[in-house]
Amino acid sequence: MGKKKLEKIRNDLFLRACKREAVERTPIWIMRQAGRYLPEYRKVRAKTDFLTMCKTPELASEVTIQPVDIIGVDAAIIFSDILVVPEAMGMHLEMHEGKGPVFPEPLNNEKDLNRLKEVDPFGDLGFVLEAVKLTKKELNGRVPLIGFAGSPWTLLTYMVEGGSSKNFSKVKSLIFNRPDLAHKILTKITKAVTDYLNAKIFAGVDAVQIFDTWGGVLSPKDFNEFSLYYVKQIIDGLNRNSNQPVIFFPKGVHYNFNEIAESGADVISLDWTVNIGDVRKEIGDKVALQGNLDPTVLYAEKEVIKIKAKEILSSFGKGSGHVFNLGHGILPDVNPDNAKTLVEFVKEESSYYH
Amino acid sequence: MGKKKLEKIRNDLFLRACKREAVERTPIWIMRQAGRYLPEYRKVRAKTDFLTMCKTPELASEVTIQPVDIIGVDAAIIFSDILVVPEAMGMHLEMHEGKGPVFPEPLNNEKDLNRLKEVDPFGDLGFVLEAVKLTKKELNGRVPLIGFAGSPWTLLTYMVEGGSSKNFSKVKSLIFNRPDLAHKILTKITKAVTDYLNAKIFAGVDAVQIFDTWGGVLSPKDFNEFSLYYVKQIIDGLNRNSNQPVIFFPKGVHYNFNEIAESGADVISLDWTVNIGDVRKEIGDKVALQGNLDPTVLYAEKEVIKIKAKEILSSFGKGSGHVFNLGHGILPDVNPDNAKTLVEFVKEESSYYH
Repeated sequence: MGKKKLEKIRNDLFLRACKREAVERTPIWIMRQAGRYLPEYRKVRAKTDFLTMCKTPELASEVTIQPVDIIGVDAAIIFSDILVVPEAMGMHLEMHEGKGPVFPEPLNNEKDLNRLKEVDPFGDLGFVLEAVKLTKKELNGRVPLIGFAGSPWTLLTYMVEGGSSKNFSKVKSLIFNRPDLAHKILTKITKAVTDYLNAKIFAGVDAVQIFDTWGGVLSPKDFNEFSLYYVKQIIDGLNRNSNQPVIFFPKGVHYNFNEIAESGADVISLDWTVNIGDVRKEIGDKVALQGNLDPTVLYAEKEVIKIKAKEILSSFGKGSGHVFNLGHGILPDVNPDNAKTLVEFVKEESSYYH
Repeated sequence: MGKKKLEKIRNDLFLRACKREAVERTPIWIMRQAGRYLPEYRKVRAKTDFLTMCKTPELASEVTIQPVDIIGVDAAIIFSDILVVPEAMGMHLEMHEGKGPVFPEPLNNEKDLNRLKEVDPFGDLGFVLEAVKLTKKELNGRVPLIGFAGSPWTLLTYMVEGGSSKNFSKVKSLIFNRPDLAHKILTKITKAVTDYLNAKIFAGVDAVQIFDTWGGVLSPKDFNEFSLYYVKQIIDGLNRNSNQPVIFFPKGVHYNFNEIAESGADVISLDWTVNIGDVRKEIGDKVALQGNLDPTVLYAEKEVIKIKAKEILSSFGKGSGHVFNLGHGILPDVNPDNAKTLVEFVKEESSYYH
């Protein structure tokens, strides 16, 4: 770990597009590409539970590489879960089949703040770093490897709600009634996420993505105060020894794009409810854009998938700075052939735009 | 029914604001104001099930008027459910406690199109019209009465998914793979909704609101094709004998505002993820705007509620054309006192803006 990476990544289209450098074609990867839609993934998953997969470097590495082999994506993303960070901060985490993640003892008040311990990523989250090292070795320079973390706001929602939420009533009450306490917790989470991402970079990831899955439930003003502010701090705090690109995905956020573009991220990932061409016009060439095909398009017939993918390519238009992706994670009941069709089509068709 | 309304509505602030006429203060009502957060509502609900309440004019009327008395809102909205229309079209509807609405036999294919019958609102949905008449009589001109319906797209999602949905996989597959069939069904729903709203207007409602609760899960292009197009047809087809205002609420939609403003609606209702002042600047004075306080702000302490409400008033700015509301329905576990605080504050504070 920590050895200067001397290996050359043979397919570096993804890294170049993140930096808005010239590319021969648009690179593509798929959020949640190492996931349940793949029979090969389900075969690994059948042997064990989700968290054990995350914590067993050999298994995490195996499923991370699957979509590179099977679907032909231009980047791998290390298999893990954003909630391993709150767990490392001392919160007991359970994964309930069908129901999702549960923190049986969610954060409630001032006292709970003291329950949150400082994270030593090399100890508490060493299993992720081992998985990164193993995956880098196995990939052997074929494609770049992405590491990721949840944004402090998104992690806070799970830590306060105790799991997934519909109305976010508890965490909203917290930010409205006790903004001081919310900021204290967010500051602690920010430190943990920054250290964690730095450890991942040290272990060898070639890029990082910050998922703000629940940024979009905030009003534009609250988003700036409770989410974007901390994401900026994380990006500022990264030791990017090889200038590793940072991707920020504020899902459901369709506002403040100019402020988001100033966050220090190299790439903004967009969901499918915005027009990628319009956003490009709005924020100019400050950052690259990732996205943003409606994930449900992969339920469609192959010819429709191609038409819809072409609309995205054409909406972004000519020039570099586009990483093709879905607007959110691939859905578990999608036919892998359809994902393959998408990847092959984008690889072929996109050369026209470069 | 159908007698020319000669009664004068004493508090017509809501109607004037919808038409962007001068008002002394900003009117306010609250989506789902006749609902579970009120103990008085729960008392009625305890005696019977949800659909029976919808179908018993005396009960529907009673809970419709409750928030006028208890919370002091400037408009009543007839208690009902958007799914009574698909039910009237021949789809068996069940309301499952805690799980929400279920259509045990959702629409699947061409054959199912023939299962959908034409709706006679005066027969099939006479209970709503009776509730409207009864409520108008009981209100006796105190405040206007709003009638509502779901948009064709939003109704289609329930009819195809068989209930609430997370990923909308079935209805998205339908529009991508069989747009022809989707359009045929949407055309049938549009006819039913138009006839239903016309019957409500005939029965005496003073305004109508069209809820497009799931418009926001579509891409901007698909929204125009599968939702907005049909909403326009409905608005065109209304017989507004007293120029009753139409409110359109495309929840989660944050794009195409200029096209939405051209839909024929008098008022666009906004959720809390857009800045109401920015939207006003964008679309100018083509339409009035309704909204858009984050519903979870009502979990906050009273002083915070006032600060956040003031931010909305100030964001919209001076002049008429603002109907204050939440950005979505009031949540069932809100303290009614907080709703009352909001209403009183808006009534008092908003005179500054007029």
